[in-house]
Amino acid sequence: MFDTAELGQKVSKADFKERELELREALLKLQYRCLELSGFPVIIDLAGVDGAGKGTTVDLLNKWMDPRWIRAIGYQEPTAEESARPRYWRYWRDLPPKGRIGLYLSGRYSPALLGRVYGQLDDAEFDDRLSEIIRFENTLADDGALILKFWMHLSRESQKERLEALSADPLLSYQVKEKDWRNHENYDEFIAAAEKIITRTNRSAARWNIVEGVDANYRHLAVGEVIRSELERHLARFESAPADAGFADPRETNGSRDETPHSLTIFDNLDMSKTLPKGKNGRKLKKLQARLGELGRKAREQGQSTVLVFEGPDAAGKGGAIRRTVWSLDARAYRIYQFAAPTDVERQHHYLWRFWKKLPRAGNVSVFDRSWYGRVLVERLEGFATEAEWRRAYNEINDFESQIVGRGIILLKFWLHITKDEQLKRFNQRAESTYKHWKLTDEDWRNRELWEAYEQAAHDMVQFTSTGEAPWILVEGNNKHYARQKVIQSVCDALEARVG
Amino acid sequence: MFDTAELGQKVSKADFKERELELREALLKLQYRCLELSGFPVIIDLAGVDGAGKGTTVDLLNKWMDPRWIRAIGYQEPTAEESARPRYWRYWRDLPPKGRIGLYLSGRYSPALLGRVYGQLDDAEFDDRLSEIIRFENTLADDGALILKFWMHLSRESQKERLEALSADPLLSYQVKEKDWRNHENYDEFIAAAEKIITRTNRSAARWNIVEGVDANYRHLAVGEVIRSELERHLARFESAPADAGFADPRETNGSRDETPHSLTIFDNLDMSKTLPKGKNGRKLKKLQARLGELGRKAREQGQSTVLVFEGPDAAGKGGAIRRTVWSLDARAYRIYQFAAPTDVERQHHYLWRFWKKLPRAGNVSVFDRSWYGRVLVERLEGFATEAEWRRAYNEINDFESQIVGRGIILLKFWLHITKDEQLKRFNQRAESTYKHWKLTDEDWRNRELWEAYEQAAHDMVQFTSTGEAPWILVEGNNKHYARQKVIQSVCDALEARVG
Repeated sequence: MFDTAELGQKVSKADFKERELELREALLKLQYRCLELSGFPVIIDLAGVDGAGKGTTVDLLNKWMDPRWIRAIGYQEPTAEESARPRYWRYWRDLPPKGRIGLYLSGRYSPALLGRVYGQLDDAEFDDRLSEIIRFENTLADDGALILKFWMHLSRESQKERLEALSADPLLSYQVKEKDWRNHENYDEFIAAAEKIITRTNRSAARWNIVEGVDANYRHLAVGEVIRSELERHLARFESAPADAGFADPRETNGSRDETPHSLTIFDNLDMSKTLPKGKNGRKLKKLQARLGELGRKAREQGQSTVLVFEGPDAAGKGGAIRRTVWSLDARAYRIYQFAAPTDVERQHHYLWRFWKKLPRAGNVSVFDRSWYGRVLVERLEGFATEAEWRRAYNEINDFESQIVGRGIILLKFWLHITKDEQLKRFNQRAESTYKHWKLTDEDWRNRELWEAYEQAAHDMVQFTSTGEAPWILVEGNNKHYARQKVIQSVCDALEARVG
Repeated sequence: MFDTAELGQKVSKADFKERELELREALLKLQYRCLELSGFPVIIDLAGVDGAGKGTTVDLLNKWMDPRWIRAIGYQEPTAEESARPRYWRYWRDLPPKGRIGLYLSGRYSPALLGRVYGQLDDAEFDDRLSEIIRFENTLADDGALILKFWMHLSRESQKERLEALSADPLLSYQVKEKDWRNHENYDEFIAAAEKIITRTNRSAARWNIVEGVDANYRHLAVGEVIRSELERHLARFESAPADAGFADPRETNGSRDETPHSLTIFDNLDMSKTLPKGKNGRKLKKLQARLGELGRKAREQGQSTVLVFEGPDAAGKGGAIRRTVWSLDARAYRIYQFAAPTDVERQHHYLWRFWKKLPRAGNVSVFDRSWYGRVLVERLEGFATEAEWRRAYNEINDFESQIVGRGIILLKFWLHITKDEQLKRFNQRAESTYKHWKLTDEDWRNRELWEAYEQAAHDMVQFTSTGEAPWILVEGNNKHYARQKVIQSVCDALEARVG
């Protein structure tokens, strides 16, 4: 694979000067077109052999283009902040907004590569890492991102010469670290792992470009030319695509689809008459809350994080259930996030981005009052997401949640359900109440008209996102007291199993 | 996940009669449109819980549509024939041609499911199987195939009732096998594995439909309706898509792309002056051939299969090298396959299909005189494959070869190279020869004009398909004797390492 990048490709200084000028002008123009359009982020990965000139390439790209709209990011060992979250939290956090460019050094490929070379990852783990990378890149590319990956290559001999030359230069010797020599000693393993990585992850969503790294002029032009032509292609495609089609799979259409003839949904099977037995319910709730307080303290001490998700129709009692739950928790340990339409900044990112950012730090609780499930509920119903987008979202969400659970975070998803009649009763109560009428808006009445479609969407959601590791907990919500106890009880049980 | 399919959905006999008639007419019409268009194959998988009515659904579909264009296929334990080939050989072999429908029972999902339930597959192996399935489905879907997957579900209780009812019926009791009861005993493991499978493999290229299996009328209509609407969608998309765009990734365009500024290709680094040392070359060749004969016999005895691939420019000496190689082998043990433009039948399938079919049985040798690499060479140059198609092919080919190698088959890929001048010399010799002039056609002269583009395509091919498990062997071919010895030597070395 890499023999093709050991040919001694060279560009003379004079040639370089001539071609550089034209290239710079073109790149700068393209950068501004991207910015103006703000249609997609540009993710550029520079990976490869130590000493192959990744750093100087970043410098040059910053010189060639307007550095205000470029962010170069390198990664070290995960910080404590980062370790408490799923592995990809930091990569999600650092994504460039639409229109801008992110340059990544030692990015998501580094841990897989080094873990393989130094034996921390066995075959299966290594494969898992590559699958994780592919899913990440597909998710972003499906959303329109342009992902360009460069592997800067040096032969074993050239690498040795380069490292020696750098070490001998008093101004540059700081660049050569002990680990570079250690990597050099493991050159063969390094290259074998790189080949596997490139073979597996060279996909239409994010292609690899292998660049010979010996001659700086050649290398710089090669990288610059690929960026130029790929930016041109991507801009052209983007500008010619119908606005709402995005980069969706062409096998998808946005038309309605005849669904399996459901006469029943999963919610028809709930016993909506459930109430609490008469008697000491107040005391029962108090006891549960006390238990939750105790377990919450233990979770905090042990660094056990929790994510609670609440979804359900308007007036199903999400707010009330959340308040009764967090009531027992240390106010510093939890945050409640409410999600309505995305903000301008959020709109410049993938729809999952704003949720990734809110994952709790170690020992804390994030409560989501509405969540990423908006994609397959309101966005589906209102047509804010194309059919391709919301159908794809089941997978994206399963993947997201799998990463949360895989990091050891407790994830509980509550669907608070009420009947259509009960909703009407509550709407009317709100309308008549002197202190609750603000809770009722015209939109609520409008949503109510979509009740059946909403139930169908929620049914499909449960079907494809209620998994063994992250099942939906369906809560019969016509009786508020029953619903709240069921929620708190579930949280207690989950904490008990982990920290009790 | 499956709670949504335990709702007691029912359709009355009267309703069924009414809806069946309309559905039948629609399905038959759609089937004929598919046939007439012959644009894509239809792959329908029926998986699910034993007793959930997979068999009767197949019967019904055959009754509703024209059974001449439907093939129902069930799989048992692999036969000896099948075991010698990669796992997917039988699935490739049984693919329906474009325009027709394949119905699969106990298909590619069965081994993964049962292997998981009965513990033959550990976590990593199970994941590998699912990745394999996804790659297979993506490969077919990228080529336009419509893939519909049904999971027929029964709750544990319903399954028990169904099995008991079948066992009690003297006409149907044969349907219930011991393994069905064993599976029932492992119901929970079965369902857990199914959930994992569906979650992982529910992708836009091939979605799952979960169908409640208790009521036959409901089940039949549900399956039929999904087939109807998906056929309609797919036909509409296919008919509206530009002919050559196929179902390509929209991120691809078919335009030319500025490549990295190669002034050199991998072939510039070959020492094309290589010849054999003067003297006993005839004897050396004989000795090599004798050794190959010996090793070939051992390979046959041990059931070691071999695949030899030959590619290179016209007149590079592929034929001569092949003849000298197989000369030592038992004529019953090898087959030489020459590939030119695909036949009509082959054109009705994925481009890899004709190569899959030619994989050797145990202990045999398949020699490919030109191969699947046509996709990224001649098809790329002549525009027979779109840019999206040939770019995607690097991955498809790596995956194909990885399955060959993974099954323990020896795979050697020879690139016989000659210089442009040497080709001219040989062309002229052929033109003048009284017995070789038939080997030279107008097309050869035309191909020669594309020499540089062809070298670039071959360079890219080596870059992305020369992998550790299946490296390209570049053979300096200006001297025929040298080239032949290098080829035979390489085959000997590979056999020696395995059976020597």
